[in-house]
Amino acid sequence: MTLSVPILSDISTRYDRVRQQSVRLCAPLQPEDATVQPHPDVSPPKWHLGHSTWFFENFVLVPHSPGYRPFDERLNWFFNSYYESQGPRILRSQRGNMTRPALAQILEYRTHVDTAMRELLAGEDEAVASLTELGLHHEQQHQELLVTDIKYILGTNPLYPRYRERKREAPAAAAVPHTYHGVAGGRYSIGHRGAGFCWDNELSRHDVLLQPFGIGSRLVTNGEYRQFMEDDGYARFELWQMEGIAWARELEVKAPLYWYPVDGDWKHYTLTDGLTTVDPHLPVTHISWYEADAYARWAGARLPTEFEWEAATRERDVQPDHDGNWSERGDLHPAAARSPTDPQLLGHTWEWTNSAYLPYPRYPRPEGALGEYNGKFMINQMVLRGGSCATPFSHIRPTYRNFFQPDKRWQFTGIRLAKDL
Amino acid sequence: MTLSVPILSDISTRYDRVRQQSVRLCAPLQPEDATVQPHPDVSPPKWHLGHSTWFFENFVLVPHSPGYRPFDERLNWFFNSYYESQGPRILRSQRGNMTRPALAQILEYRTHVDTAMRELLAGEDEAVASLTELGLHHEQQHQELLVTDIKYILGTNPLYPRYRERKREAPAAAAVPHTYHGVAGGRYSIGHRGAGFCWDNELSRHDVLLQPFGIGSRLVTNGEYRQFMEDDGYARFELWQMEGIAWARELEVKAPLYWYPVDGDWKHYTLTDGLTTVDPHLPVTHISWYEADAYARWAGARLPTEFEWEAATRERDVQPDHDGNWSERGDLHPAAARSPTDPQLLGHTWEWTNSAYLPYPRYPRPEGALGEYNGKFMINQMVLRGGSCATPFSHIRPTYRNFFQPDKRWQFTGIRLAKDL
Amino acid sequence: MTLSVPILSDISTRYDRVRQQSVRLCAPLQPEDATVQPHPDVSPPKWHLGHSTWFFENFVLVPHSPGYRPFDERLNWFFNSYYESQGPRILRSQRGNMTRPALAQILEYRTHVDTAMRELLAGEDEAVASLTELGLHHEQQHQELLVTDIKYILGTNPLYPRYRERKREAPAAAAVPHTYHGVAGGRYSIGHRGAGFCWDNELSRHDVLLQPFGIGSRLVTNGEYRQFMEDDGYARFELWQMEGIAWARELEVKAPLYWYPVDGDWKHYTLTDGLTTVDPHLPVTHISWYEADAYARWAGARLPTEFEWEAATRERDVQPDHDGNWSERGDLHPAAARSPTDPQLLGHTWEWTNSAYLPYPRYPRPEGALGEYNGKFMINQMVLRGGSCATPFSHIRPTYRNFFQPDKRWQFTGIRLAKDL
Amino acid sequence: MTLSVPILSDISTRYDRVRQQSVRLCAPLQPEDATVQPHPDVSPPKWHLGHSTWFFENFVLVPHSPGYRPFDERLNWFFNSYYESQGPRILRSQRGNMTRPALAQILEYRTHVDTAMRELLAGEDEAVASLTELGLHHEQQHQELLVTDIKYILGTNPLYPRYRERKREAPAAAAVPHTYHGVAGGRYSIGHRGAGFCWDNELSRHDVLLQPFGIGSRLVTNGEYRQFMEDDGYARFELWQMEGIAWARELEVKAPLYWYPVDGDWKHYTLTDGLTTVDPHLPVTHISWYEADAYARWAGARLPTEFEWEAATRERDVQPDHDGNWSERGDLHPAAARSPTDPQLLGHTWEWTNSAYLPYPRYPRPEGALGEYNGKFMINQMVLRGGSCATPFSHIRPTYRNFFQPDKRWQFTGIRLAKDL
Repeated sequence: MTLSVPILSDISTRYDRVRQQSVRLCAPLQPEDATVQPHPDVSPPKWHLGHSTWFFENFVLVPHSPGYRPFDERLNWFFNSYYESQGPRILRSQRGNMTRPALAQILEYRTHVDTAMRELLAGEDEAVASLTELGLHHEQQHQELLVTDIKYILGTNPLYPRYRERKREAPAAAAVPHTYHGVAGGRYSIGHRGAGFCWDNELSRHDVLLQPFGIGSRLVTNGEYRQFMEDDGYARFELWQMEGIAWARELEVKAPLYWYPVDGDWKHYTLTDGLTTVDPHLPVTHISWYEADAYARWAGARLPTEFEWEAATRERDVQPDHDGNWSERGDLHPAAARSPTDPQLLGHTWEWTNSAYLPYPRYPRPEGALGEYNGKFMINQMVLRGGSCATPFSHIRPTYRNFFQPDKRWQFTGIRLAKDL
Repeated sequence: MTLSVPILSDISTRYDRVRQQSVRLCAPLQPEDATVQPHPDVSPPKWHLGHSTWFFENFVLVPHSPGYRPFDERLNWFFNSYYESQGPRILRSQRGNMTRPALAQILEYRTHVDTAMRELLAGEDEAVASLTELGLHHEQQHQELLVTDIKYILGTNPLYPRYRERKREAPAAAAVPHTYHGVAGGRYSIGHRGAGFCWDNELSRHDVLLQPFGIGSRLVTNGEYRQFMEDDGYARFELWQMEGIAWARELEVKAPLYWYPVDGDWKHYTLTDGLTTVDPHLPVTHISWYEADAYARWAGARLPTEFEWEAATRERDVQPDHDGNWSERGDLHPAAARSPTDPQLLGHTWEWTNSAYLPYPRYPRPEGALGEYNGKFMINQMVLRGGSCATPFSHIRPTYRNFFQPDKRWQFTGIRLAKDL
Repeated sequence: MTLSVPILSDISTRYDRVRQQSVRLCAPLQPEDATVQPHPDVSPPKWHLGHSTWFFENFVLVPHSPGYRPFDERLNWFFNSYYESQGPRILRSQRGNMTRPALAQILEYRTHVDTAMRELLAGEDEAVASLTELGLHHEQQHQELLVTDIKYILGTNPLYPRYRERKREAPAAAAVPHTYHGVAGGRYSIGHRGAGFCWDNELSRHDVLLQPFGIGSRLVTNGEYRQFMEDDGYARFELWQMEGIAWARELEVKAPLYWYPVDGDWKHYTLTDGLTTVDPHLPVTHISWYEADAYARWAGARLPTEFEWEAATRERDVQPDHDGNWSERGDLHPAAARSPTDPQLLGHTWEWTNSAYLPYPRYPRPEGALGEYNGKFMINQMVLRGGSCATPFSHIRPTYRNFFQPDKRWQFTGIRLAKDL
Repeated sequence: MTLSVPILSDISTRYDRVRQQSVRLCAPLQPEDATVQPHPDVSPPKWHLGHSTWFFENFVLVPHSPGYRPFDERLNWFFNSYYESQGPRILRSQRGNMTRPALAQILEYRTHVDTAMRELLAGEDEAVASLTELGLHHEQQHQELLVTDIKYILGTNPLYPRYRERKREAPAAAAVPHTYHGVAGGRYSIGHRGAGFCWDNELSRHDVLLQPFGIGSRLVTNGEYRQFMEDDGYARFELWQMEGIAWARELEVKAPLYWYPVDGDWKHYTLTDGLTTVDPHLPVTHISWYEADAYARWAGARLPTEFEWEAATRERDVQPDHDGNWSERGDLHPAAARSPTDPQLLGHTWEWTNSAYLPYPRYPRPEGALGEYNGKFMINQMVLRGGSCATPFSHIRPTYRNFFQPDKRWQFTGIRLAKDL
């Protein structure tokens, strides 16, 4: 990643704000909710609280704060996620069996580390500030996972408890029409440029050639997706990749994640409403790449490549918008496009692309533990773009590359269509 | 089971005492500890609290208390264990993912049911009293599981937290010598007789023929078991059943459960001491039937049949003893034989026998849901006898038949030797 | 096993006869048929031909014939089944991938060993004769497995090729009525007695006490079993052991093995007729212990114990009969009882008992490799009695104990009912 | 695929030649060898013979030859590979259990179809000729699989039988030095052009931008790969993708497929020599993408993209060469570069690229069954280029895109390095 130097006077403030946000996200939970791991992809919420703290202890305090006394060295074993260079760790699948350290102890751990970090940051050391910036972006990624993991824990419990109450808006009257915006063929620059923070995988900036294409004017809606379902879309093999239909058959997938058939209709779980009727005008979410790909083929379209997506976003000069549907808004669910010109390219749902997650030309894989962060996942994953309703606003940009295996659906994933022109 | 009529004036007192004991066993736990299921055989402690309550609600209150209002009908789905006749239920393997109902709600559920039960018991109805007696024996079985499941949850956590502090006795100076008590061949009566409660599987009482045999004078100790380990016992195939050595190889079993190699020595986890040195003079525990069987062969002996065990216990007129090593004592670990004449046949550890769990002649399998209790497990399980340090004192008797698959080791299981005479 | 001394002049003749029979059983096969292992329980026919030969080479020739030159020492690795004491061997699950040694080479191997064996037997050494006797009984067991494994290979191939043509008898007009023969309670002797060969597990002969019982007058028929099926027997949990119904659900078992639904009726595969209509009057076969147990409960009866079975067979003085339904007859399928007094206790199908396979009192587990033969399977298996249409006639006796796990159905297994009197 | 019109007078000749080659490849096999499936990726050789025949029967004869009588309609069920549109079929994992149809019957099937095809081709119908051309390219793909599947069957058999004897050349004296050829950055055309046959996935031809890069002058050798192994390459996590090292750990991969440690050295299996010493100067083969990727990182290089590979091949004007190391040569093993200017880009081994197998812009996915051929595998696979010693000469071209999952190693796969300039 570019270890750009943040404005030193700001980093302390930003540190506090980001760190508090993680705790705030866990406030509505019972200790029980913070503990379990009902799916191998999901981590216990209290693990996220510990792991993001361990990151600061291990990568900032231990090397840079000479007198620092670790809270409890045995916690290394619990909170190292996958850094081979940082020693042994529990099997990922065992995280949900670890009742200790209990939530209360982990909150003490956070306080211990935060106190030491504030003191260290007061020294206004540039290397420390850069590493801290990195740690905060890392923590923001875990904030998104906190939301999606909590959703899995509560949304697969037959009591369907709400995470947080929120005044319900009236259902959308109708979705705006779906059209295609044309983008000219030619040479486009891809990747991060400028002074701000970016991850290593957004580099090096380079040019690509694109052919003329159309990009869908908004996200695909639940109503449109239900037409695919009702047109027997999950069974029509010619719409699917072979691996995709095998996946759907084996797991008996017939609808997006969190959709439940109730009395002949579909309901789904949302964090603020619990089990509720599916609104046809909202964007469909919690679908795998396999489903997005099959839907697109059914719709006579295809998924955009990540290069097309980035070019279209640049062309339309879409920038992250404070008032967009980010985690700060608290909806924690995608909303309808507000108008025919609302592109929904940023926020709402991550958008599956038809690009594999591979290094850009002259990708600068970092040395050491941080080189394990993005560079060791570059096989069998697909790129997603745009951020979601669970992404912190300050964490996103048009060059951001998220990536997951094509079967994953517990993130807020959605569908953007494209077609050849 | 024999639904013997308990003394009506006693049942209310007994109800309160047994019910409170379950809650007391969970008092040292954090809510996190009460939630998880780190092994398919283990259930979350809060599940045991809910399930034993559901038993009274579903089998006593609903049929016998006309105005009873269930606490929350959705809980049926959570707390039915395996009663096919009582409707659908969550997969056993999913119990540990259910964070709701949270522990606090389950304690409310208990209060709700206890209030209604006390009122119902005040009516002094004999049928109700009999069913309640049954429910209390059922709850006592779950009290033993509570202890063993808590041990698994805490004893596989790398912080090895103690369950409850307890003043440590000095380690035993030496184990008493191991000898064999001869029992004459002939005709012996097996199974329950008399007015007290027993389970259906202890019936019908019948005679068997035994050949003369010797029964080990005490349980096998950790020190003796370590000799087997050091004599390469886990690798010498001629000592094992083929299925047993395949099990040990696949799971890389090299010692009893909860034994950990630390700095060249063996430590083990106990509920009151956490991770502690293995005392060679205490009985070995947490071993599978496979290991017990292999150890016996190594020792030039064999396991007793359940008939030999019962005959020997009768012969020596061993009766449950209030001061024995039961769960009430609070050690929650087997203790050394106090003298050469202390037979250790009751309490301390369950003793694996070489008898398969099969029906006695003229076994009276009950009709309906209760027929699912003991009668549907009569294949591929082995009988254990004698009760353990985690068994409630009032729950045991010499005819009691416990049963588990031969690979199970999370119960307090131990080894009693026998040999032909 | 009792290494009784066979009559020396007979052993050579018997050697030739038994050895030729194995080859004869494989004569109708294509080399392809002799090679595969479509189920972990099944072994390739050419493996049986090699393994039974290896037994003589390894246990008779190598130790007793000083100048013997092994055919090819690398074959040890292929043809050792599970004798830990005899060195490493291929994983059982890999047997079906071993295309070499090809069938033709294995037949050469047999010739090589047979030549050396004939020479050795001419020496009339008693120890050699005893070991040879043992090897022949071992080979006869593999002859039964050859038949059942061939049936699996051909009977799961969608072309359903016949193994061997045989003139079809007219279907039975009707089954004889099913009644119960009473057997008095009392003391019975169990186990082998006398001079002939027996396996170690038939010893020691000992007495048991039995209560009065009735034993079914014949085997249960296909027609009777279909009534159980049509009465929803596979779904009614109260009829099953919990482990049994879980097995049936997981594998979607709804009928005996080799039964296929065709055009609304049931057909099944037999070795001499290929795919053919199920004759309701013939004994049902290819069912698991779980199914036998559930059927018996549905029929208001139970399975006999192995002691009851042996006592009833002794009481009725049933002896193996040359003209019975053994493998020599060539039907390779159970036949109807010829009359109301035809007990069908020997031949036709192995009969599941409700006895676990455990050692008899004072069981003499042999030392060395031969101790691995019967003594290391004494857990989680159930006893079957009586022999089947695939058992060689000279291989059976009323004390013979066969044993398999309760889910196995590829042997010719059937149902004998019993009940309390 | 481009259904280009082949020269009509040639197609009959070509049909005969290709079809005979498949049978010739199976000539050295025993019927046993032709039957098994020792790995899910491997198909029985007789299945390939049947499936490639079914392709002509089903896609050419049935629709285009009015009076054609199928050989045996039941074979459809065996020989349909994965064409959902062509009806049900046996599970891929069951192919190796199907002993019938036996090899001899499948050869009759081939004769039956060939006779009908020759007659049909005599009609000189252009549509028939195009489909036939397609079927022959399909059969050539299966010829390569025949070689690799036979290698798996024989090369994992502990007797290590040779497939075919061949005079051994003297081991290479030394490998030519490894250097990098620079390729200028700029715009390159990618994909098939012109009149000859190509697969659909080689279209549409389009331009890409490349940055300047160097391409390795030859394939990586066994000797070079052993240095990686001896430098602890399989254990150094920083060299691997996380998914790759997890794969290596779980399967305990420590060397290329078919390498066996023998007496402290490495031997490997080759089709013409059986088990033989690894020649350090020959190209390494039978390695997964994971291994190729880790090796490249260890060597301070990277894998080329498929676009770089194609551009470099074009730049150097490398064309398939009759005398190259194709299956026709019969070596069935990669050979050393003959000189410093021998690029080894075509033949010898398939070369893993760092490109995911995804559609080119404006990819023309065909309708119907043939659309299932290449278009439904476009997820989680990596592209390989160049053909191998098991590829028929007439089957390859510089735009050919082969694709496999990154863990596959039973093909003749190898390593070409690249680096940024």
